[in-house]
Amino acid sequence: MRRSQLHRCITPWSVTSENQTTSFDYSRVVAQFKSQQILQQDRQELLDRIETVSKKSDQQHQQSFLKHFLRRGIIFSHRDFGDFLNDQEKSRPAYLYTGRGPSASSMHIGHLLPFYLCSSLQQTFDIPLVIQVTDDEKFLFRDINLDKLDKMTTENIKDIIACGFDQDKTFIFRNTQYFGEMYMTILQIQRCFSTNAVQKTFGFSGTDCVGKLSFAATQAAPCFASSFPKVLPFADRSNARCLIPCAIDQDPFFVLTRNNCCGPLKKSKPSLLHTTFLPGLKGPGVKMSSSDKDLSNVILLTDDEAAVKKKMRSAFSGGRATLKELQEKGADLEVDTAYQYLRYFLLDQQEFEEIGKEYGSGKISTGAVKDRAAEVVNSVLKTFREKRSAVTDETVKSFCEKRMLK
Amino acid sequence: MRRSQLHRCITPWSVTSENQTTSFDYSRVVAQFKSQQILQQDRQELLDRIETVSKKSDQQHQQSFLKHFLRRGIIFSHRDFGDFLNDQEKSRPAYLYTGRGPSASSMHIGHLLPFYLCSSLQQTFDIPLVIQVTDDEKFLFRDINLDKLDKMTTENIKDIIACGFDQDKTFIFRNTQYFGEMYMTILQIQRCFSTNAVQKTFGFSGTDCVGKLSFAATQAAPCFASSFPKVLPFADRSNARCLIPCAIDQDPFFVLTRNNCCGPLKKSKPSLLHTTFLPGLKGPGVKMSSSDKDLSNVILLTDDEAAVKKKMRSAFSGGRATLKELQEKGADLEVDTAYQYLRYFLLDQQEFEEIGKEYGSGKISTGAVKDRAAEVVNSVLKTFREKRSAVTDETVKSFCEKRMLK
Repeated sequence: MRRSQLHRCITPWSVTSENQTTSFDYSRVVAQFKSQQILQQDRQELLDRIETVSKKSDQQHQQSFLKHFLRRGIIFSHRDFGDFLNDQEKSRPAYLYTGRGPSASSMHIGHLLPFYLCSSLQQTFDIPLVIQVTDDEKFLFRDINLDKLDKMTTENIKDIIACGFDQDKTFIFRNTQYFGEMYMTILQIQRCFSTNAVQKTFGFSGTDCVGKLSFAATQAAPCFASSFPKVLPFADRSNARCLIPCAIDQDPFFVLTRNNCCGPLKKSKPSLLHTTFLPGLKGPGVKMSSSDKDLSNVILLTDDEAAVKKKMRSAFSGGRATLKELQEKGADLEVDTAYQYLRYFLLDQQEFEEIGKEYGSGKISTGAVKDRAAEVVNSVLKTFREKRSAVTDETVKSFCEKRMLK
Repeated sequence: MRRSQLHRCITPWSVTSENQTTSFDYSRVVAQFKSQQILQQDRQELLDRIETVSKKSDQQHQQSFLKHFLRRGIIFSHRDFGDFLNDQEKSRPAYLYTGRGPSASSMHIGHLLPFYLCSSLQQTFDIPLVIQVTDDEKFLFRDINLDKLDKMTTENIKDIIACGFDQDKTFIFRNTQYFGEMYMTILQIQRCFSTNAVQKTFGFSGTDCVGKLSFAATQAAPCFASSFPKVLPFADRSNARCLIPCAIDQDPFFVLTRNNCCGPLKKSKPSLLHTTFLPGLKGPGVKMSSSDKDLSNVILLTDDEAAVKKKMRSAFSGGRATLKELQEKGADLEVDTAYQYLRYFLLDQQEFEEIGKEYGSGKISTGAVKDRAAEVVNSVLKTFREKRSAVTDETVKSFCEKRMLK
């Protein structure tokens, strides 16, 4: 893939690889985005440093998505994560920021990953978290009706809450309701973003509406603690460090912010952790999308056990054309959907390594791996749904209430 | 002046005529802006219609700035003012909208005119008024510090209040404080404004910041009653008629709104009344500006009697080079600053006509007209300052409080 093509293939609103059966080459993504790659040989050192800084033992970390994502290369790149760790070590104010653009009324399983990671980061470092729900973005970028948007936004917030956050330390806000509080910060960012810079970053043209241009500042605003005068409990809000775990497609917003705002506004640059995309069921080169018309590419949070099993059974496979070929060459794990889902969702490292070894050498069948992947995914969904059923409108109100976090 | 030049000479942020000693040719302005000119022969008919619709007798109208401005051609053009009058006749919901971008801490005398007109319109039609204070605009367009802006904004609001509004029917708001309430409406407008359309309307380039582009939607928002869910007391806010009295330089914002939003959003087009510019002291082709470094072009609201007299004495004159020439040709009233100030501020129609006749035929001296103009201006300033001294921080709070108007 040429670089110019790559640039077109990954944007915050659409992600496709050149060929849907080829996995993303994340080394090239890193080269394109000029972020800092986390090489396999550096992972253990980073994990040790996190353990030291957070004062959480390996035992406490065992089931943590942070550790899990780092170990398996799902967190594959970062920006100034070292600065965040240094600040943590010195007990300087810091917080987490993630977001979600509400789309279909039910999210898909890939949407859970950044929230599980966020929850794990919150537990590890014991810091506040702000979650921006960009209902305004959906209105500006999609032909969607405001009433429908309102309903789906509430459902999405319930899904987010079910990922398990510390209510005392988490503030969830909808832009259409919270915008006023951020406006002073947004104005300062808007003044730093030229039309040219935003158009070039996102590939907008003159026919795009002005809302799309100013939205770049809206998504940037939570990078700065000044957007949360009544929420973030810091004595000095002027220079708190923000850490953003996100899929790499959201990176351009924050590069724009880091390069154009932090200098003039004299603010700390936000740190970033980049995750890879959970592949769609149709192949590793297609990001899942719940607004996708073709639901056979996606596992929805509302899919039941049988549906998951059926979808996984017909998912794109790296298991070769014939059993003979599989036994000779082994499976192509890199592109095998079932194996990749185990990489994301099977936390048991020993079992995961065994499956990799046996499937990679053709000793077990594609069907067996697919069924195990369906089991694991169903177990994740079961836990999620149990938590989700406990989330009421009252819970939503509590998380969304403008209040000083602890 | 060629049309393309005219376009460059009148923008919401800068107004200059080609030659500072030539007055604006408002017939050409009307042709350029494609607005509806109010011809001299149509003025009386319009005044009669206003009297009928508003049920205010000529006696009650006598000292009204609305009548005065129409009679003297200071209101020289409009857009759909007839629709506003029709709506008034049928008792349909309507309101007034004006605005102010805070600049220097003291406003100049030209700034009073739109507010006097607004006050007069409010009295005539007995309808609510919203006043947008665009502190955000100043921050985006000028290199200004936020603390300084805050202070000057409060002073400006006090000046506005001193122009005399019905507190029960007037809501004054600062964008930096009220933006959140308008955001749903602003989003809908932003979606209607393409980057191209806004750039073309205001002559912005790619190096201009994105805030300037989105500000167009911010100034448009009060055209729609949906921006004031807790302020405008209408049973149905979806289609209330907005009337905007403004100097012609602000017209592009509302043309953009009328042409791009009203159709897609199914809203009534705002009606407009356009006023001419009060000439600067240096000549009829220069609009006064209180951020102007050269204060000899401007009468500030804080100038004392002697200062006004002195400034008026050295103002640009149409009184010819020599007394002999004046007596032969008469004064050039069109460009004479003192005479023009009388046109704006001397409400006594009989005296005004006499001065015009005598000075126009060279029977009275320039000095006498200048002194009379200084007297009239000083009398306006005296009344203003008396009212201004009664405005407290509490008054500001009352006018700016978000509440349902009567």
